[in-house]
Amino acid sequence: MSQPSPSYTITLRVEVAASQRATSTVVNAVTDAGAEVMGVDIAHSTSHGLVMDITCDTVDAGHGERVVDAINALEGAHVLKMSDSTFLMHLGGKIEVTAKVPLKTRRDLSRAYTPGVARVCLAIAEHPEDARRLTIKRNTVAVVTDGTAVLGLGDIGPAAALPVMEGKAALFKEFGGVDAWPVCLDTKDTEEIIRIVKAIAPVYGGVNLEDISAPRCFEIEARLREELDIPVFHDDQHGTAIVVLAALINALKVVGKKLDEVRIVVSGVGAAGNAIIRLLTAQGARYIVAFGREGALHAGEPTDDPHRGWIVANTNAGGFAGSLQEGLKGADVFIGVSAGDILTGEDVAQMADGAIVFALANPTPEVDPRAAAQTAAVVATGRSDHPNQINNVLAFPGLFRGLLDTGATDITTEMLRVAAVAIADVVSPEELNSAYIIPGVFDHRVAEAVADAVREQARTGS
Amino acid sequence: MSQPSPSYTITLRVEVAASQRATSTVVNAVTDAGAEVMGVDIAHSTSHGLVMDITCDTVDAGHGERVVDAINALEGAHVLKMSDSTFLMHLGGKIEVTAKVPLKTRRDLSRAYTPGVARVCLAIAEHPEDARRLTIKRNTVAVVTDGTAVLGLGDIGPAAALPVMEGKAALFKEFGGVDAWPVCLDTKDTEEIIRIVKAIAPVYGGVNLEDISAPRCFEIEARLREELDIPVFHDDQHGTAIVVLAALINALKVVGKKLDEVRIVVSGVGAAGNAIIRLLTAQGARYIVAFGREGALHAGEPTDDPHRGWIVANTNAGGFAGSLQEGLKGADVFIGVSAGDILTGEDVAQMADGAIVFALANPTPEVDPRAAAQTAAVVATGRSDHPNQINNVLAFPGLFRGLLDTGATDITTEMLRVAAVAIADVVSPEELNSAYIIPGVFDHRVAEAVADAVREQARTGS
Repeated sequence: MSQPSPSYTITLRVEVAASQRATSTVVNAVTDAGAEVMGVDIAHSTSHGLVMDITCDTVDAGHGERVVDAINALEGAHVLKMSDSTFLMHLGGKIEVTAKVPLKTRRDLSRAYTPGVARVCLAIAEHPEDARRLTIKRNTVAVVTDGTAVLGLGDIGPAAALPVMEGKAALFKEFGGVDAWPVCLDTKDTEEIIRIVKAIAPVYGGVNLEDISAPRCFEIEARLREELDIPVFHDDQHGTAIVVLAALINALKVVGKKLDEVRIVVSGVGAAGNAIIRLLTAQGARYIVAFGREGALHAGEPTDDPHRGWIVANTNAGGFAGSLQEGLKGADVFIGVSAGDILTGEDVAQMADGAIVFALANPTPEVDPRAAAQTAAVVATGRSDHPNQINNVLAFPGLFRGLLDTGATDITTEMLRVAAVAIADVVSPEELNSAYIIPGVFDHRVAEAVADAVREQARTGS
Repeated sequence: MSQPSPSYTITLRVEVAASQRATSTVVNAVTDAGAEVMGVDIAHSTSHGLVMDITCDTVDAGHGERVVDAINALEGAHVLKMSDSTFLMHLGGKIEVTAKVPLKTRRDLSRAYTPGVARVCLAIAEHPEDARRLTIKRNTVAVVTDGTAVLGLGDIGPAAALPVMEGKAALFKEFGGVDAWPVCLDTKDTEEIIRIVKAIAPVYGGVNLEDISAPRCFEIEARLREELDIPVFHDDQHGTAIVVLAALINALKVVGKKLDEVRIVVSGVGAAGNAIIRLLTAQGARYIVAFGREGALHAGEPTDDPHRGWIVANTNAGGFAGSLQEGLKGADVFIGVSAGDILTGEDVAQMADGAIVFALANPTPEVDPRAAAQTAAVVATGRSDHPNQINNVLAFPGLFRGLLDTGATDITTEMLRVAAVAIADVVSPEELNSAYIIPGVFDHRVAEAVADAVREQARTGS
């Protein structure tokens, strides 16, 4: 994990004395300090000196300082300023609101605003269903969070969650053509969150819940689905489940096994684990055992939690009651949505031949993917620096594109399932191999395929 | 009010037999029916016929049908379809959310979204004041309504109010470079509206309350100003007050009178009337009498309403207790923000020489502006088809531009006042006359002048 990365790209403004070798001396110092130089631009030049901008990827925040020290140690070189490309990209926010209509003349204004707009308002007041035709509702999704479970960072609050929600909104537009808007709520009260989302709903054609901690996320999603007439989706649950199912469908093809015959171990029974187990079951999986922090969930240990109760009732028919390590012995599939570094390569080696390992904890997977790959046939992670990245961006843009296009009022399990199958099918038999079970995030065929499948299901399904 | 208008522009697709005069015959029929032809486009042509699109302004919704009948009465002509330009402009909504950052490569994604975004989130969690620098908060305003007092339409609800809020957002961007987002709330409960706006506030650098009925709007604005650390502005009150003061400053120059000497009659003591009286007082007006539906507000009639109470305590020192018509006798200035057609030209004729009449009720002014102009020296309305349009778009974009640029946490009366003076000053002494007391809405100098004044006031004011 200690390679230079574009998340830590810095630009250094360096002043050097003029000489034939000034640039190469500095570049060598940067490289020797472990950074990867992406480019050098000359900012100013005079007869006796140069000012240049060196852009380079570093390993972490502290690494940048060490690179600066390495340059300052050179004779005649001096760092004037260090800037961080990631922070520069976020300056002033990453999305904006723009007009789709011209507002340059009196004619424009009379139609878009007063007095012409009054007729459009009255049309909607008389025929509320026209709101989808005559307003942004048709193409707009609220990205709702309370900032309690942001990335792997935990409860950092609504203001600190905003950069993620802005990024999500940007991805919605880039991959699905969907207008998404961040709703970062300064409350953790379940009932209040439900009331607020219902109150703001007139503007939106769908709701994407994001980074809300369990178990409140279950109640919030269930209640909003029941009480709103627009689709409500909790991406941490169902987005993850869709992409996991897609990847598993293709991984099973690689190892020549069938979903209804394989033994599946799921580590993690939070939001994602719960949804994954439900979707795998809908697709026909029959032998699943789920593990929480205290080991396997089984009928011998009663629970008050309805979500754990559902898992107990629908998995582990054999009543296995041991640890995750014990449960892994002879299993065909491991799916981890839990915590980093809880398994070793030796644990994976205990699995059946042709084992499939999805170690999705972020940023540190449940097992080092290189260690797992020593014996497993297929390994996937949530990271972009290993093959087979399980990334929700494969699911949510196309899913909402399909929902909005059909004016769907609810999301069915069948829609989630066909979305997963559509993602899996983007990988052709000729392309499929153990390092390519899932399309890349920049494969624009994916969102279109998912949207097609969801539209079809919305029009014909029950 | 029965002239063809761009708010009622229609396009007619007409099939006609081929002939040298086919187009002119149809155009003549449209013109004879009272519509104004804006253009003719040929859609298809064959050897025996033409299909053409005729775009024309009509008077009202029923007029379009009469134009269609006139064409169908022609020999060999037939209307295939009528479409309404105003509705076409609103199809799918008038604003969109777009990304300001590229998302085309893995490097882009690593910075804008995971994993790079995590560092930006942590920076904000550690230094909450960085949210203004690193998120959209810096440039974003919530346009909040409950749909209870939309234009002159009354309580049409949040969904039907959305076309207005979208238009407002488009104007914010066009004139102020501000990103504004519609928040249309499906609740009329004062406390709930206050709670919701507070809960969604992390995303926004300001709040523009819009079309919320009195008296709830007063309580909502006052409480939010007190409880939020971002500026809160009720446009129906303060936006109107700013532009009225600007227009009055220049109208008084035209007639050679002074604000602290003139007798001012204000008709209407709702949201707008209240704010106008307060701002005129702040600028130095001393002789104001306010009229509600039952006549003049005066100290002899106690009131429980604190807003009316303030008016009673700060106006009408002489204790005048008569009707609006009586109060108008000898007055220098009439400002109407009440209801249409409550005064006649004869009433206006009773005013002092060099009378100023602002009849701002929409869509029908308090007095016909042509009748008022028979005796008044300066007449203004809220309409675009008469000189001197009092339009809030002159105020809110520049005001929020200034507030956001300075990170202001509150709006002071002094900011409103300097904004009004800035608008008035855009009209140079050489330009000033009775038909040009206020700049046009497309005059881009206005927003910049208002923003400059507000920035200066925010930096130096108390």
